[in-house]
Amino acid sequence: MRILILGGDGYLGWPTALYFSNRGHEVHAVDNYLRRRAHTEAGTDSLTPIGESLPSRADAWRAVTGYRIGVTEGDLTDWSVVEPLFKDFSPEVVIHYGEIPSAPYSQISREHAVFTQYNNVVNTLNVLFAMRDLAPEAHLVKLGTMGEYGTPDIDIEEGFIEIHHRDRSDVLPFPKLPGSLYHCSKVHDSTNIHFACRVWGLRSTDLNQGVVYGIDTEETALDPRLATRFDYDEVFGTALNRFCLQAVIGHPLTVYGTGGQTRGYLNILDTLACVELAAMNPPTEGEYRVFNQFTEQFSVNDLAELVRRAGAEYGLEVRVENVENPRVEAEHHYYNAKHTALLDLGLKPHFLSETLVESMFAAIERHRDRVVTKAIMPKTMWRPKRRVAEPVA
Amino acid sequence: MRILILGGDGYLGWPTALYFSNRGHEVHAVDNYLRRRAHTEAGTDSLTPIGESLPSRADAWRAVTGYRIGVTEGDLTDWSVVEPLFKDFSPEVVIHYGEIPSAPYSQISREHAVFTQYNNVVNTLNVLFAMRDLAPEAHLVKLGTMGEYGTPDIDIEEGFIEIHHRDRSDVLPFPKLPGSLYHCSKVHDSTNIHFACRVWGLRSTDLNQGVVYGIDTEETALDPRLATRFDYDEVFGTALNRFCLQAVIGHPLTVYGTGGQTRGYLNILDTLACVELAAMNPPTEGEYRVFNQFTEQFSVNDLAELVRRAGAEYGLEVRVENVENPRVEAEHHYYNAKHTALLDLGLKPHFLSETLVESMFAAIERHRDRVVTKAIMPKTMWRPKRRVAEPVA
Repeated sequence: MRILILGGDGYLGWPTALYFSNRGHEVHAVDNYLRRRAHTEAGTDSLTPIGESLPSRADAWRAVTGYRIGVTEGDLTDWSVVEPLFKDFSPEVVIHYGEIPSAPYSQISREHAVFTQYNNVVNTLNVLFAMRDLAPEAHLVKLGTMGEYGTPDIDIEEGFIEIHHRDRSDVLPFPKLPGSLYHCSKVHDSTNIHFACRVWGLRSTDLNQGVVYGIDTEETALDPRLATRFDYDEVFGTALNRFCLQAVIGHPLTVYGTGGQTRGYLNILDTLACVELAAMNPPTEGEYRVFNQFTEQFSVNDLAELVRRAGAEYGLEVRVENVENPRVEAEHHYYNAKHTALLDLGLKPHFLSETLVESMFAAIERHRDRVVTKAIMPKTMWRPKRRVAEPVA
Repeated sequence: MRILILGGDGYLGWPTALYFSNRGHEVHAVDNYLRRRAHTEAGTDSLTPIGESLPSRADAWRAVTGYRIGVTEGDLTDWSVVEPLFKDFSPEVVIHYGEIPSAPYSQISREHAVFTQYNNVVNTLNVLFAMRDLAPEAHLVKLGTMGEYGTPDIDIEEGFIEIHHRDRSDVLPFPKLPGSLYHCSKVHDSTNIHFACRVWGLRSTDLNQGVVYGIDTEETALDPRLATRFDYDEVFGTALNRFCLQAVIGHPLTVYGTGGQTRGYLNILDTLACVELAAMNPPTEGEYRVFNQFTEQFSVNDLAELVRRAGAEYGLEVRVENVENPRVEAEHHYYNAKHTALLDLGLKPHFLSETLVESMFAAIERHRDRVVTKAIMPKTMWRPKRRVAEPVA
């Protein structure tokens, strides 16, 4: 199949490109290096050294495996990039990771919030119009997030819920309570994509993904030049990956607040398997379906305790520190999110274990000299200190 | 009170500015003339002649009543416009009509869709950040639309619904099925505003308004220079206003499809009363509340029949024509939308009647020489004819 990967330079986009290429698909990857630029501006970087550009990474992949990955360096908010991409490549599957993926990034300032929503909403609109006019039979596999749902006090279903109300019922989009302006941007995307399926007959799978952990995949492990990025900083790092790094460098694990926040998690290997299962089992014309893409639920405290135990076994002394929660979120809440659709399609999960955590310790140790320690503690506050309103003259 | 009116040059924004000014409030109106420019580009115009600019309209208001309305000509997507506005005026109430209000406009092309969502989402984000940092106690009265809900097969509640699901329950945002990319932009706004209330403690009333009809208000009728705009073209016109104009000029009433589409409607006088009731009864800190702002439900066929009857009484021969529906929407559907919150606050509705329709005929007749007939028939299709995909080489 001809598979277009948007955001192909990212933590998940790059391994996804390798994964499909390794299985004989024709892969074309697009990225505008937005994440790399954000790191440069902040003085941070991926823990793992990665190839200097998409073309150089694709060259390395070709040198190692003989497979070719096509590359476009360009911005999907720019129609003059998107249109020729769809015309020339004529994708059968579009896997869309090409968005700013960070809640803290969107909360840094007004400019960051506007840029996040502009970038994510406009590039997805461009993709939808490109599909409508240039690839109407293609299947959009869009990376959403479990964070679109927030933490409602009922079970979270996969995208839609049957609501019984005053003697009538209907199956309607599951209500959303996004927890940051980034998460809001993903809700906006879902609304737009659902519209495009209903009205234009496009087909799309929205993968509401949990928090991904892990460093290596079968393909990235083939050669150091094929490594994917690994973020641990307060802006782009995520809970388990950051805890593992903190354990290795002797930094206390930073549990935000009391640590009762519960979310869905999955191994990076399962991300690849889920995206493949979605791609190989496309929806019908006009169908918009949502899969909740995670394999296990954990609280932040669960993860900290697991890392502490694995650390003890590995010979690391791990301290856990409860820091002031920079986010506005419930720290004690009900959480029971369904995630059976991908299991029904055949997903065989890689569950989280001490062994996996220890293998991450080992991978992180190889690059511990690259850690920028000052980038770890949370600085971005969801609720800035209020200025006292000045008295009116 | 100090009342900031965003979109103060528009069909509803201008009469709202006059209404509050007439009641002794300090009013400041902002507009970037986006609607006027869209009309100029399309070769259309308001049926009613309106003042050439906001300052000239404010001058006329001062000449007629002695009241002063402050004016800013500027674009709310531009922070250098928004920031001084909030700093200098320090609003207590922000009434936000300042958006592209047209479903067909957003469906004309990719460029129109992107511009609609960019304009509406970014200017509302700017307003939210301005409130957070410069006017945290102010009350945002935001004009939403009943079109955010679409036509679900259950009763439509006012913004939130109590969902019972597997032995648990929660009150959650009512699911949305927006019917155009414009309507999607209003859903995006609702998501962002709800977030800003939950996380920043802002207070907002989201008025999910039905279709407004009517030409004159108490204030606009004081002097011809105070008239508000009246749109009847396929892009900015709405059902009843357009039918009245068609009746007057002898054009068949253009019922889209079979005409069973049912929506909520209200008189422009009730828009003013509702906005005032919302403003005078603000929500508490952190509260995001939604009122469904309409007074009666009608199908398109109901309206056509009413205009036909009123026309016969008035001496007009009115023909009704079913034209191909340019939209993708259900033409037979359940529709029962709640709208008690504003009644509970004291709204006394002006119900639709033949007398009202006849008074609209009279107002329209005064300007019938200004009608651009070729702008009436629908040209913007929700679902463009599909190109046949070219065979892959």
